[in-house]
Amino acid sequence: MKLATARLSLVPLDPDADAEALHTAYGDPEVMAWWTRPETASAAETRLLLAEDNAQSGAMLWTIRAENDTVVGLVGLLGAVEIPGLTWILAKRAWGRGYATEAAAAVIEHAFVHVGLDRVEAWVQASNTRSLAVCRRLDMTCRGMLAQRYTHQAHPHEVVVLGRTNTRKRQEPSPVLHVEPVLPVADVPATLELLQPILSARVGFAVGEPIEVAGLVLGPWSVGPSLRLVTASQSQSGPVTLALDVGTEFDSLYQRAIEAESGQVEPPVEQPWGVREFVFQLPDGHRLEFSAPA
Amino acid sequence: MKLATARLSLVPLDPDADAEALHTAYGDPEVMAWWTRPETASAAETRLLLAEDNAQSGAMLWTIRAENDTVVGLVGLLGAVEIPGLTWILAKRAWGRGYATEAAAAVIEHAFVHVGLDRVEAWVQASNTRSLAVCRRLDMTCRGMLAQRYTHQAHPHEVVVLGRTNTRKRQEPSPVLHVEPVLPVADVPATLELLQPILSARVGFAVGEPIEVAGLVLGPWSVGPSLRLVTASQSQSGPVTLALDVGTEFDSLYQRAIEAESGQVEPPVEQPWGVREFVFQLPDGHRLEFSAPA
Repeated sequence: MKLATARLSLVPLDPDADAEALHTAYGDPEVMAWWTRPETASAAETRLLLAEDNAQSGAMLWTIRAENDTVVGLVGLLGAVEIPGLTWILAKRAWGRGYATEAAAAVIEHAFVHVGLDRVEAWVQASNTRSLAVCRRLDMTCRGMLAQRYTHQAHPHEVVVLGRTNTRKRQEPSPVLHVEPVLPVADVPATLELLQPILSARVGFAVGEPIEVAGLVLGPWSVGPSLRLVTASQSQSGPVTLALDVGTEFDSLYQRAIEAESGQVEPPVEQPWGVREFVFQLPDGHRLEFSAPA
Repeated sequence: MKLATARLSLVPLDPDADAEALHTAYGDPEVMAWWTRPETASAAETRLLLAEDNAQSGAMLWTIRAENDTVVGLVGLLGAVEIPGLTWILAKRAWGRGYATEAAAAVIEHAFVHVGLDRVEAWVQASNTRSLAVCRRLDMTCRGMLAQRYTHQAHPHEVVVLGRTNTRKRQEPSPVLHVEPVLPVADVPATLELLQPILSARVGFAVGEPIEVAGLVLGPWSVGPSLRLVTASQSQSGPVTLALDVGTEFDSLYQRAIEAESGQVEPPVEQPWGVREFVFQLPDGHRLEFSAPA
């Protein structure tokens, strides 16, 4: 189905017919700097990539056509994802005119009104301010962050996950806003002193003198990943395992862990599923499994 | 210190001199619908409230003055908060002109350039679309959600915490992006079947046939509160306690918990610190402590 906006027409992708024109985007290193893979080497490789993406179950992709029906980019919904995912790419010469926002807004409207989707999501590299601005103009708001490493890049990066819900549908309130694991420890003040510098954490709340219960917030905001320390005698729990996604900070966290005065560190291992992990075991036996993209 | 914008001047609050003019905002039920307290009954009560707010440690409050130096509202930074918190209020007659955005932008600029703050935060009721739009225009993005109940209201509501960092300062990358507690259970598939409907959760990943490890995502997005189930023999952990903030969904979650086929429910109790809690204990002994504002 064709879609139209004030300045653009969106025509369903035909990889064979459109590869040549789209190669000006997919073959450009500057355009592909934020992409999951490096630029393609030829229009033929671009055609293969487009055919693959288009064949994914549920994919809906349109070429973006500006004046004179010129193809300037691609927009649509990714296939083979659990949460509908918005994607777009624009040739460099078409940047800076609001085309990405205009095209993606039409796709979202189509997805909500005609396809009946409940929500769409976009994954944007945290330093990609242009795409974050597109998302902001699309009324997509941040839902959380994760870490990713693209196979052609040496280091992982932070990714912002933004989303917009279909307000035409009845919205379910969020049933669970936050999960805070509770770690029973023999000595809450000593554990705070041990964990605060490793995790760059701040004490969100503390009860008792000396402290018997404390909340550690792992980030600079009022909300965010957190954990609670309680005096061991108040709880029946045994040692707890926590999996912590540490994004780009794996090495510095490991350094701080091995420099800590107590606790045991197991050295980093690379898991077959593409993550690096190290374990920091607290004196009370709790295991903090730090992981990042390998 | 006075601040000036294109259309407005911001003059440090003087509760005695400004109470009368500001009472058109604080005394108006429509303006106060999103506030932490009901409207004030008189200019004298407004003066008391302003004096209290102004006296909080670290508070920086300015009256917003439009044409002819008329006071149309208040803007500034809250005192006695751990993360600097933006606040604003506008008399109804001054709505819809972008005054809140213009005034708050000047306050943020002042806070970043002259005070040298690292970040500012705003807490906005999730259904307050006007204030969320102000935050969007101020480049404040969502950092998380929490639940609150104002003492004059019958029910709790969801609050969006939005924030903006001072990009003039060196930004620390987020050390920990996410914390996922790991629950060892005898039977992962049975536990999934038990927990999914109670928590409105979806399975983010599953390993093994039958499933030996699974990630439960507690929300509709790719990221969000989550927990991991592992087959008990793979782990040395004992029973785990998790504190779950369930916002407005306390009663429906409790209903689903007592209708579950297994597990034990302890009935809701009201804690002296202003929250309601109920505990759902899994067959493996793990305790899920659900809490919401009382």
